[in-house]
Amino acid sequence: MSRRGWLGTAGVGVVAAGAGVVAGRASRSGGSASESAGAFAFRGEHQAGIVTPAQDRLHFAAFDVHTETRAELIELLRTWTAMAERMTGGQETTENGAVGDGQYKPPSDTGEALDLGPSGLTLTIGFGPSLFTTAEGVDRFAIAARKPAALADLPKFSGDALEAARSGGDLAIQACADDPQVAVHAIRNLARVGFGKVSVRWSQLGFGRTSSTSTSQTTPRNLLGFKDGTRNIKAEDETEVDRSVWVDGHDDQAWMAGGSYLVARKIRMLIEPWDRATLHEQERVIGRAKGSGAPLGGSEEFDEPDFAAAGASGPLIDRDAHVRLASAEELNGIQILRRGYNFTEGSDGFGHLDAGLFFIAYCRDPQRQFVPMQRNLARNDALNEYIKHVGSAVFAVPPGLGPEDYWGSSLFAP
Amino acid sequence: MSRRGWLGTAGVGVVAAGAGVVAGRASRSGGSASESAGAFAFRGEHQAGIVTPAQDRLHFAAFDVHTETRAELIELLRTWTAMAERMTGGQETTENGAVGDGQYKPPSDTGEALDLGPSGLTLTIGFGPSLFTTAEGVDRFAIAARKPAALADLPKFSGDALEAARSGGDLAIQACADDPQVAVHAIRNLARVGFGKVSVRWSQLGFGRTSSTSTSQTTPRNLLGFKDGTRNIKAEDETEVDRSVWVDGHDDQAWMAGGSYLVARKIRMLIEPWDRATLHEQERVIGRAKGSGAPLGGSEEFDEPDFAAAGASGPLIDRDAHVRLASAEELNGIQILRRGYNFTEGSDGFGHLDAGLFFIAYCRDPQRQFVPMQRNLARNDALNEYIKHVGSAVFAVPPGLGPEDYWGSSLFAP
Repeated sequence: MSRRGWLGTAGVGVVAAGAGVVAGRASRSGGSASESAGAFAFRGEHQAGIVTPAQDRLHFAAFDVHTETRAELIELLRTWTAMAERMTGGQETTENGAVGDGQYKPPSDTGEALDLGPSGLTLTIGFGPSLFTTAEGVDRFAIAARKPAALADLPKFSGDALEAARSGGDLAIQACADDPQVAVHAIRNLARVGFGKVSVRWSQLGFGRTSSTSTSQTTPRNLLGFKDGTRNIKAEDETEVDRSVWVDGHDDQAWMAGGSYLVARKIRMLIEPWDRATLHEQERVIGRAKGSGAPLGGSEEFDEPDFAAAGASGPLIDRDAHVRLASAEELNGIQILRRGYNFTEGSDGFGHLDAGLFFIAYCRDPQRQFVPMQRNLARNDALNEYIKHVGSAVFAVPPGLGPEDYWGSSLFAP
Repeated sequence: MSRRGWLGTAGVGVVAAGAGVVAGRASRSGGSASESAGAFAFRGEHQAGIVTPAQDRLHFAAFDVHTETRAELIELLRTWTAMAERMTGGQETTENGAVGDGQYKPPSDTGEALDLGPSGLTLTIGFGPSLFTTAEGVDRFAIAARKPAALADLPKFSGDALEAARSGGDLAIQACADDPQVAVHAIRNLARVGFGKVSVRWSQLGFGRTSSTSTSQTTPRNLLGFKDGTRNIKAEDETEVDRSVWVDGHDDQAWMAGGSYLVARKIRMLIEPWDRATLHEQERVIGRAKGSGAPLGGSEEFDEPDFAAAGASGPLIDRDAHVRLASAEELNGIQILRRGYNFTEGSDGFGHLDAGLFFIAYCRDPQRQFVPMQRNLARNDALNEYIKHVGSAVFAVPPGLGPEDYWGSSLFAP
């Protein structure tokens, strides 16, 4: 199937496009319903933490890589992989890591997650454009030739107010768990072990997932008070997941087969003007009823929006309503898998709360999915009056791991 | 009982000192074990959120008060009280607040906690020294004569690195809940309604409570990886709670009878040097085993520390060990009720995680409990090499509410 062909076919003829591509991998990661205290498989065809039913808490960290040698970077990725497998399996016990290495060494684990179990922890790695080629064009790790076209830096969108310190990164790790201490513990220990080779460029804590990624979950609310993610791709729709989330390896770098792309956008909500808007205005902007989550004109949350229905003046669902502009109907079939989290970070210095949405999306090609979607939203979305994009990053998320693989082994394979 | 008498008597002769002082109040707030999805009584002898079994999540906000009129401040406190009672009761439904006020008004509730239930939410208010008298000595609200002596600003302690933007405040609200979205929702809505009269001076999110306040709870771990709060006062020890937490009204302002004092300290942990310390050093600094939490020389977490036991050179529990310096044995019987939370706030700009402990303590007189304790710790604690106090505040926490009371009604009573 050509790169051009897969968009716009809306699920027709692409059934199981990703299946069987990556031989020898046992199962789709995270396809089963979440057990909140349970563990998700670390190895599999795809990395866990993408279609895995969204856990309640997030700790996301973007890193700058300081080491200049390919061997040292690979060595760190191998070490991280072993740690990640141990932590996602909940194998922090008093018998190892935290206190098991003897009195006269620094403990190999910091210990604050002792006894908390796996808590549904997933750790997902991604590689940023700058890992392949620095801003000066340097190919530090002899991987520039493997840089995917889809991994280009995102263009500037209308209204962007990005902060450099909140954007980019050579690589990123997404930790999701049902217990924030478990997510924080994981990122902290990976950062700790990377000391001298990598440093935290920016990081983000999130709570109250704003998108459900499984039909087994109810739709959570974002900090605008609206249900968010009703029409999100669900893990159970494998046809759509294969069409819109997983790279199939024919229209991308071979090492990315079974992988995906992660787009992160830190979206500050201007909650004070929002909170002073009437319910009518809020529902017009979103295009849904605030209480039930039903599309305007519908009665149940999962009713399909009727974009053609007429209202008193113009369409019932406004031309600039968020639900319309972000819809597959509007975007020639484009869909993305959203996995965002709410955040709150104290005061903004003007007596208001600094809060919003840390938007995470997974897609097969950000240039052909996220970029046209965000262009449409950035130009026209009625919601723009109430939000501001302050951070942005894109990462190539390699496929899942076979029994002998480490994070990035397909990228660094000879 | 004289003000001088109650310290040093260590539980003798002060049984039920606080009981019966505040007539007509139904019950001790939060004395029962927590039901994680349940509601705690909003009204009672004492405010909930103090001895209430510590919930998992915190959103704490300190406010500057901008209104200059006593009537307007009282009106806001009345409004807040009604909102707080509604929110702690989980009474946000689609029938009121979020969508029940009609289409052409801003909703009276922002809606993101719809359907989440009470989630154990408690809201606890406190009044700062500057509410009584401004830095210029102005008695804005005709309450200067009622300022408790115990509410003096805290002295500067050795090693303090306080940031003004993270310290002080005219009043504070502590929101604790088992769901962070519920805690954030509460603070957000209180701040929203206070717009123009108050503004958020600073706020703090916390997770993974670091102190258990009930014998029904297991002891959580702080971000040093150690169990924190083993020797904390527990709600079930009513004798000690009455001795060390509740103001009895004879040795303080009458309006504070049944109240307490809240001391907040934002303590940044220097986790990188800590993580590079040997297990032996970490355990020497704390005075406990990292795995079990047992005091050095003991075998179980709740064994009493033997401060007299001899080690290979000097005492087995170091002279500067945290557990010794903070102990009632060392401090002539002083105890406080700790109710702290872990925090993590992204990168510190040097590639390290900005993380630590948001310390909250409740005590009957901060000048006679927290201040001498912190003086001792600030001078000698071996832990000082690994921590830095960056924020500080103290608040007078009024008593619980009778059926007709509002937050602060005893303070503003004629």
